[in-house]
Amino acid sequence: MLTYDMEERGGLSRYDYLSRRIKEDIRSGMLAAGEKLPSKRSLAAHLRVSLSTVESAYSQLAAEGYILAREKRGYYVCAVERGQEAKHLPPPEEEPAPEEGGWLLDMKQGGWGTLGFPYTVWARLMRQVLTQEGEALLRPSPGSGALPLRRALARYLYRFRGMSVSPGQIVVGAGADHLYGQVVQLLGREKIYGVERPGHVKIRQVYQLYGACCVDIEAGWDGIDPVQAIQSGAEVLHLSPAHQFPTGSVIPIGRRQALLRWASEWAGRYILEDDYDSEFRFTGRPIPTMQSVDTGGRVLYLNTFSRTLAPSLRISYLVLPPALAEAYRRSLGFYSCPVPVAEQLTLARFLEEGHFESHVNRMRSRYRAARRAVLSALAASPLAGRYDLRGEEDGLHFLLRLDTGLSDGELGRRGLEAGLRLAFLSDYGGREPHWLVVNDPGIDLSSFPAALERLAGLLDGGAFPSCAPVVHGVK
Amino acid sequence: MLTYDMEERGGLSRYDYLSRRIKEDIRSGMLAAGEKLPSKRSLAAHLRVSLSTVESAYSQLAAEGYILAREKRGYYVCAVERGQEAKHLPPPEEEPAPEEGGWLLDMKQGGWGTLGFPYTVWARLMRQVLTQEGEALLRPSPGSGALPLRRALARYLYRFRGMSVSPGQIVVGAGADHLYGQVVQLLGREKIYGVERPGHVKIRQVYQLYGACCVDIEAGWDGIDPVQAIQSGAEVLHLSPAHQFPTGSVIPIGRRQALLRWASEWAGRYILEDDYDSEFRFTGRPIPTMQSVDTGGRVLYLNTFSRTLAPSLRISYLVLPPALAEAYRRSLGFYSCPVPVAEQLTLARFLEEGHFESHVNRMRSRYRAARRAVLSALAASPLAGRYDLRGEEDGLHFLLRLDTGLSDGELGRRGLEAGLRLAFLSDYGGREPHWLVVNDPGIDLSSFPAALERLAGLLDGGAFPSCAPVVHGVK
Repeated sequence: MLTYDMEERGGLSRYDYLSRRIKEDIRSGMLAAGEKLPSKRSLAAHLRVSLSTVESAYSQLAAEGYILAREKRGYYVCAVERGQEAKHLPPPEEEPAPEEGGWLLDMKQGGWGTLGFPYTVWARLMRQVLTQEGEALLRPSPGSGALPLRRALARYLYRFRGMSVSPGQIVVGAGADHLYGQVVQLLGREKIYGVERPGHVKIRQVYQLYGACCVDIEAGWDGIDPVQAIQSGAEVLHLSPAHQFPTGSVIPIGRRQALLRWASEWAGRYILEDDYDSEFRFTGRPIPTMQSVDTGGRVLYLNTFSRTLAPSLRISYLVLPPALAEAYRRSLGFYSCPVPVAEQLTLARFLEEGHFESHVNRMRSRYRAARRAVLSALAASPLAGRYDLRGEEDGLHFLLRLDTGLSDGELGRRGLEAGLRLAFLSDYGGREPHWLVVNDPGIDLSSFPAALERLAGLLDGGAFPSCAPVVHGVK
Repeated sequence: MLTYDMEERGGLSRYDYLSRRIKEDIRSGMLAAGEKLPSKRSLAAHLRVSLSTVESAYSQLAAEGYILAREKRGYYVCAVERGQEAKHLPPPEEEPAPEEGGWLLDMKQGGWGTLGFPYTVWARLMRQVLTQEGEALLRPSPGSGALPLRRALARYLYRFRGMSVSPGQIVVGAGADHLYGQVVQLLGREKIYGVERPGHVKIRQVYQLYGACCVDIEAGWDGIDPVQAIQSGAEVLHLSPAHQFPTGSVIPIGRRQALLRWASEWAGRYILEDDYDSEFRFTGRPIPTMQSVDTGGRVLYLNTFSRTLAPSLRISYLVLPPALAEAYRRSLGFYSCPVPVAEQLTLARFLEEGHFESHVNRMRSRYRAARRAVLSALAASPLAGRYDLRGEEDGLHFLLRLDTGLSDGELGRRGLEAGLRLAFLSDYGGREPHWLVVNDPGIDLSSFPAALERLAGLLDGGAFPSCAPVVHGVK
């Protein structure tokens, strides 16, 4: 008969201790496969524990598969490999928090959306949503997003982007990455995706991870060339017509028309209009979207709140042509919308009550002022007279060409040594050297003049005079 | 000279009106490609507007690509296809809110996580996070999730699941769907994925949309058979060892050991342990995870807060073996974590302060009580004596076999006519007929007895006596 000293159980409950001891005996081979266990009643009497203790222990062992109950015949030991069960494991090491960069200038940090977030209003609306929405907050939203948010987006697009779309054409996603992936799943992995070069490396990475093939479409200072785009063999063009990153170019109306014509000439051709920062045009009216002039149902429009509100918010949206919206419902409609419903409803209120519009207006002025300050600092720095600018009138980045004989690679290395993390057009696939991509919202204006002084010192090929050690972490 | 009556501009600003009129003339062909526009100064004088009005109008037209500025020579009309520009579009039709089901009984509605949500605590923590975290809230979290949440998850898993994992092994995702997709991108589309049958249809759908090939692994009442799993040719097994959906089976220890041995025998074999509802075991201790006994680094553990908190929350997580965590950082680390940072930090506090544990305990009692009520209603219904049960001791669903000569298809159709949306084991790929899958948290106990009465009336093959019209929408 199984004999265990129940007094040795420490802090464990009787049934838990008993089941662990029997488990050990099975794993050690003391109890062999096929062996019959004592009846519950006799084991209880033998160990002087209650019948229910043995019942609980046996049923836990049976649930885990160490023993098997045979009707009216009792419990039998199952075949189990010998060896110790994983013991109570030690707690794992804590992961240290990552070190902060410590750069004097970090151009690889976008910086947009980390200032001026309307905490007070957002927190108030979130609180309202949490207390007023009740059960609606708990049920999963339709795969394409909560209807109140899709309605608010449709109204916003109508008023501010001149787009007439129904909420049924809108798909809410968790950031641009997520929607790029949805686009591949909707249009097909077997299609060829044309991506702008230079451009965001991430776009190509996502397409490739989803198994799609990408080709480069050269983006020049006047946007992409439709002839080259057409000859590339691409079937889907991923474009940012209103403000290309990083060239800053706008696709002119003539080229837009040619691209729309190309798309409508053949079934299965599409244009993904990535309108990622059109809200931050500093002068004049917004550039009309390609979606609003597309009569053939070939433009998928994509935007995100990463730059207008905060990158941590992870809300983006797609506007599909009606036929694709229907196809989406059929083939991808089973997905759950990845954005928490509370966030969706908070954003819906934020849009409907006009807060978004005033926030964007406020941020536009703020970014415009920051741009002026950055340009003044440049003009007042030792770089003065040694640089050209491009795209400095608009958006959240501009280009700056340095007058230097060094290669971008060499200048980048020297920059790192001097505490400057530089971003070049060539890092994004651009062919012209010496262009820096300046994401000005990420620039700390207090250290910018010092950074420019160091940068100027690097241009002539001399080594950086390391007067003081610079502390920074290189990834 | 261009002549427009500036008094006709209505509510538009002068420059906007002027640029629209010129645009119309270009699109209508009145202004031909290559034609030179009047100088800004002369047009301003001619129209009696300020020079800056013409400057703004010309620069808007240039930005959109209707005209081109040639240095020191003036502005020229670009080649643009003729045709009307899209006019101010009519606002789109509003999408009506979807009709509610109106079923007397809807078994396809899971119902979990829509009751008992701890609003007050959650709202308080969210408010704290929004007011205390400041800028940390705005910066995007690392791709694998905010460190405070990953730390809280590691501590939770250690205390309640006996798992010793470091925060660096954890990847936070936006619901299970999202993480299934990440798994395919991590392990490779070219692998063969074994999925349980019967099982969640969605799992297979996601794998296939990501381009992976799936094979069925038969899940019987004793869990999956390792021999069949091994012979299936699968390289990745997607299993729910603690509580299979919908059979309710637990994979016994002997079979777990055989599966782990299979995985460690060959590079590239993995087990995805989908622990979707292990928190809701009503009796005894939780079933130990396969992850905690995996010594070969072959188990990926997945869980979600959809059932424990709310499906609308969209937070899930993966625990990767260390080598895969490293591979994840290398190949998928560029992704932004799709969960809003505010939600991540709120959940971290919710876990660290012990609210999650007490919430789960409360819900476990609540679901246990609901289970008892559902079983009592069954025993008291006209179905009494005409059904068998399986898996009724645990979890958020159980199986009920009806004594009927009708096929599942026929019974399902009659159910719909009678206002009952039934879910069968065969709907999930099960081979045995007549088993209903009862998601009891979704059951409205007030109408359940009436629903059972109708159901009993359908079993004998007689048509449903439609005494009263039933209002419901069929999808």
